[in-house]
Amino acid sequence: MSAVRIGIIGAGYWGPNMVRNFMIQKDCEVRAVADLMEKRRQFIASRYPTVKTYERAEDLIADAEIDAVVIATPVETHAPLATLALNSGKHVLLEKPMCSSAAECDKLIALAEQKDLRLMVDHTFLYTGAVRKICAMADAGELGDILYFDSVRVNLGLFQHDVNVIWDLAPHDVSIMDALIKRPAKTVSALGTAHFGTKVENIAYVTVTFDGAAIAHFHVNWLAPVKVRTTLIGGTKKMIVYDDTEPSEKIKVYDKGVSIETNVETIHRNLVEYRIGDMYAPRLDSTEALDLVAREYIGCIREHREPLTDGKAGRRVVAVLEAANKSLSQGGVPISLS
Amino acid sequence: MSAVRIGIIGAGYWGPNMVRNFMIQKDCEVRAVADLMEKRRQFIASRYPTVKTYERAEDLIADAEIDAVVIATPVETHAPLATLALNSGKHVLLEKPMCSSAAECDKLIALAEQKDLRLMVDHTFLYTGAVRKICAMADAGELGDILYFDSVRVNLGLFQHDVNVIWDLAPHDVSIMDALIKRPAKTVSALGTAHFGTKVENIAYVTVTFDGAAIAHFHVNWLAPVKVRTTLIGGTKKMIVYDDTEPSEKIKVYDKGVSIETNVETIHRNLVEYRIGDMYAPRLDSTEALDLVAREYIGCIREHREPLTDGKAGRRVVAVLEAANKSLSQGGVPISLS
Amino acid sequence: MSAVRIGIIGAGYWGPNMVRNFMIQKDCEVRAVADLMEKRRQFIASRYPTVKTYERAEDLIADAEIDAVVIATPVETHAPLATLALNSGKHVLLEKPMCSSAAECDKLIALAEQKDLRLMVDHTFLYTGAVRKICAMADAGELGDILYFDSVRVNLGLFQHDVNVIWDLAPHDVSIMDALIKRPAKTVSALGTAHFGTKVENIAYVTVTFDGAAIAHFHVNWLAPVKVRTTLIGGTKKMIVYDDTEPSEKIKVYDKGVSIETNVETIHRNLVEYRIGDMYAPRLDSTEALDLVAREYIGCIREHREPLTDGKAGRRVVAVLEAANKSLSQGGVPISLS
Amino acid sequence: MSAVRIGIIGAGYWGPNMVRNFMIQKDCEVRAVADLMEKRRQFIASRYPTVKTYERAEDLIADAEIDAVVIATPVETHAPLATLALNSGKHVLLEKPMCSSAAECDKLIALAEQKDLRLMVDHTFLYTGAVRKICAMADAGELGDILYFDSVRVNLGLFQHDVNVIWDLAPHDVSIMDALIKRPAKTVSALGTAHFGTKVENIAYVTVTFDGAAIAHFHVNWLAPVKVRTTLIGGTKKMIVYDDTEPSEKIKVYDKGVSIETNVETIHRNLVEYRIGDMYAPRLDSTEALDLVAREYIGCIREHREPLTDGKAGRRVVAVLEAANKSLSQGGVPISLS
Repeated sequence: MSAVRIGIIGAGYWGPNMVRNFMIQKDCEVRAVADLMEKRRQFIASRYPTVKTYERAEDLIADAEIDAVVIATPVETHAPLATLALNSGKHVLLEKPMCSSAAECDKLIALAEQKDLRLMVDHTFLYTGAVRKICAMADAGELGDILYFDSVRVNLGLFQHDVNVIWDLAPHDVSIMDALIKRPAKTVSALGTAHFGTKVENIAYVTVTFDGAAIAHFHVNWLAPVKVRTTLIGGTKKMIVYDDTEPSEKIKVYDKGVSIETNVETIHRNLVEYRIGDMYAPRLDSTEALDLVAREYIGCIREHREPLTDGKAGRRVVAVLEAANKSLSQGGVPISLS
Repeated sequence: MSAVRIGIIGAGYWGPNMVRNFMIQKDCEVRAVADLMEKRRQFIASRYPTVKTYERAEDLIADAEIDAVVIATPVETHAPLATLALNSGKHVLLEKPMCSSAAECDKLIALAEQKDLRLMVDHTFLYTGAVRKICAMADAGELGDILYFDSVRVNLGLFQHDVNVIWDLAPHDVSIMDALIKRPAKTVSALGTAHFGTKVENIAYVTVTFDGAAIAHFHVNWLAPVKVRTTLIGGTKKMIVYDDTEPSEKIKVYDKGVSIETNVETIHRNLVEYRIGDMYAPRLDSTEALDLVAREYIGCIREHREPLTDGKAGRRVVAVLEAANKSLSQGGVPISLS
Repeated sequence: MSAVRIGIIGAGYWGPNMVRNFMIQKDCEVRAVADLMEKRRQFIASRYPTVKTYERAEDLIADAEIDAVVIATPVETHAPLATLALNSGKHVLLEKPMCSSAAECDKLIALAEQKDLRLMVDHTFLYTGAVRKICAMADAGELGDILYFDSVRVNLGLFQHDVNVIWDLAPHDVSIMDALIKRPAKTVSALGTAHFGTKVENIAYVTVTFDGAAIAHFHVNWLAPVKVRTTLIGGTKKMIVYDDTEPSEKIKVYDKGVSIETNVETIHRNLVEYRIGDMYAPRLDSTEALDLVAREYIGCIREHREPLTDGKAGRRVVAVLEAANKSLSQGGVPISLS
Repeated sequence: MSAVRIGIIGAGYWGPNMVRNFMIQKDCEVRAVADLMEKRRQFIASRYPTVKTYERAEDLIADAEIDAVVIATPVETHAPLATLALNSGKHVLLEKPMCSSAAECDKLIALAEQKDLRLMVDHTFLYTGAVRKICAMADAGELGDILYFDSVRVNLGLFQHDVNVIWDLAPHDVSIMDALIKRPAKTVSALGTAHFGTKVENIAYVTVTFDGAAIAHFHVNWLAPVKVRTTLIGGTKKMIVYDDTEPSEKIKVYDKGVSIETNVETIHRNLVEYRIGDMYAPRLDSTEALDLVAREYIGCIREHREPLTDGKAGRRVVAVLEAANKSLSQGGVPISLS
């Protein structure tokens, strides 16, 4: 099979990273980039003289010399652009979150299946060394049953004008949760608040329940004085603290058990002995996640197989986000996902 | 006025700390300790030969040479013991949480008022150097309006058989929130899960809303591999990170502002500049909190005034806990507190 | 054999810890404590009514019902008191540092041998869970050859009036180095400074060389704004960071190698890949070190064997300290130990 | 005055950073880059099509359209290249360390003075926000007298084949010390070791003394399992911990005093109260240091004034490094600098 010819739509914040990572792939050629803003097109042209630029995404999609598109535009444009691309016979890689609603996701999944084209979602974090290690441990049964998944992703951030903090920050963590727990979420509850007269929530708490006793929780916040990127994962065998701000030891695996104490004498005593077994921080692969995203996209197209992060995964994440927004608008009432 | 004569009920986990701290107060005499278990009475007798011991709390309460009692027993006994003590003309200091329900709190408050006796709750954390500093800053207007209060109190803990993790760990943080936000909570939502076939939740998330845009959130967890005691407090003027596990710099005050960015060009740009102003860690008073609790109890009795942490404060905390349990039992439905 | 009857000389800072730990040993009885200050004798008498008290150490040593003494007095009194005790047929445990000079140590070692009595030094840190783990790993060959031993022990401390910061803080680290490197030191260099018109150095740097390429270094400082207790240990196979201020993960073992890069192209490139293998933090035994010191003292007496930290170990540590002082007084000139 | 025309010699590790930062300066034009390796010249040519490339430094220096050169080549070439440049009437900015010996520095200083040309050394760290803040505080008298300067710069690094770890890592810290202490060093002692059969030391400890009681110490190490970049600075008024690995709070300023305790009773008591005053972390300017280096070079040329980091500063740093090597070769004997 000849090289996959890629067109990238959107050269704002994330698009140039896509261009850079697809440029270094084997069996792949970046043919064109589309962006509405001239300055961005000029930036791409000066950096990558071999890459064509388009103002309109529709023109890029119509380019017969493009096999596959990458859509890195605001989320509300994902469904129409992806629909157009699939209908034009092109594979699609969508930036996260996949779409604005689960219904839109469903239509794209059906369309891609009908056209026998690949539909992939850029859940970048699933391609990081840290998350790949956590998932590998979970898949190998080293963690036991997952009891809880607790993530905090906060910092002092710019307020988005179009989406709330859940849609901005939580897709990363929801996609990790989805890959790890591997069970459909049952309910989603969310509470948050919009300060300073803005219309979008800048702090939010999202709780997801599952069949069985697992629980997941997400704290996302644009108003925190410090940057925190910490996920606690509790398994019946081992527990993990994943701190993405750590330069070298992002994952700490704790060999800890739980002592269920019922003796009336000891029930209130102070816990002196805290750790039970060793802790270790496994070495992580430091390949850039987006390099692996690009590799997976090229690979699934050339090998005619489903990508690791397919439309269904994208849809499960969007379903949680959509339910979270619904719960928010109802003051925190749990929303059933079934 | 002569020295206040103290009787302490319950010599289990917390009671001996009470005895030790009341022993060192001026204008105060520890007259008796009551505990059902002989071993505990012997422990007190050997340490403090001048202190009488009783098996039955009722006998201590009936002791005419006692002016004021301290009740450090399981929460379900608080209301009956405090009622008996107040009816016997004795001031009452109750361990946190004050009672099992807001209704019980209301009755005690009314009874204490009718008898003109002091009713105080041991919200110990409000007497720590760290929390006193935070409250002093808030009272002086240094923080501006409180936008959010976010606490995490997790560790690998012994499962309690009688109360869930919310009633075990959250009273501390709810009492701090109450002292800081100084507005009545509007709704309480809680979700949690009970693992290993136990009947009480060992992980829970509680969200409290207020009139206006403030929000409070509590993560309590007996199943965490690491001990975390971190509270983020966001104000319009300053933000605080309060880490109670830090030996020396428990409070960090961030002089940070919020930039609400609406320019379409910059809305997605990476945040390079993170801190905006200086951070400082104020020196904290290291007096033991329980020493100040004892001092306040003696002081409010001798000065015939309300204590800092009175029955109403205790009642507000219990109301949140009670609503949290109700929300838990309804799968996370928000409970109105009005 | 009947219980070892212990007499403890010195009830100042460290002595009461000795009393407390010997009180809980099997096959042991604390018979008497001697201290020149009445207040301290009263403190011991009130806490331990069964223990006799003496004002003069000589009287305690003369007590025929005492088999073994513990000497926890200022270092300049160690040699005379230990000599007296050995001559009186009593075993001796000396607080660190063993004596004021290697010559004094030599005499005590010879005397103990002649009298067939045990002579032990309280190198407490060698009995901590952390150091025992490090030594066990070294003994098992897991670290490979020791390349360097680097310790930092600094904080804002009270200035001692009698000994400099090296004699106050470094004995701990020198004893750990001695146990780990197991080779005689070759030279000792020390530089330091005495601020504020005091006569004793409050900051000092001590470097020890060995035959072969190992090197050891000690930074001790009473003028540091933060408390640091960090030791780096480099082995050819593994490296250790031992941070004694960490509550739970005091030892981190790094599976790291060294790449000796000679390629001219890459010699200046930035190091992107930092960790090479996993890191792990082994679970440590949390038994109080002094409990094990007491146990070892009783054990070596009852089993008629040399203790783990014998007079020779004490002598090696003193030799380094003595040479350090000599180097200090000569402006940093290296002092040969052979 | 017209724009300063810059030629950069050496496009290996540091040179491209120089090119990038000079490209963005006002009143400046990067005319040419010289490097012996074709690959590096091609890299520059492709990135900066307007910049001429030379194979031989001599040809760049002979270019009449160049006013000032930047020399970013191995240290042994600094003196001959700078001499040639100065003799050709060109200003010179030298990478650190300035030269291989103080004698070479002296000759360059004299030559530059004779030719009335600027001679500047790239002591980059002095242009970072952190060090500029520390120096500003010291200059304003906020720290009081400097009592000590203690730096640790260690990590797992590639072994250099040409210079030892002191010449590789210590120039940064020695230049900071020099800017801060502002007094001539009196003696330099150094001990280190070369492992694995290499000829250059990979671990070293350097101690510098001054007239008065100040002391400076440098620990440099290519064999450490963790990256440490910590400097403790003790002043009579305030103390600083400068941790360059911290992303946001690199400098912590401690308002601490020293209590010189002579009371015999308390001399051994445990230090409960550790901090005395507040700690604060000032906001730092995040301008890239090399941007300011370039700005200063252009500025001093255009304004015909001495640069902040002139030849004399470079010479003082080299003198310390040279003495350190001499001490190393004599087994740690202190070398006098007067």
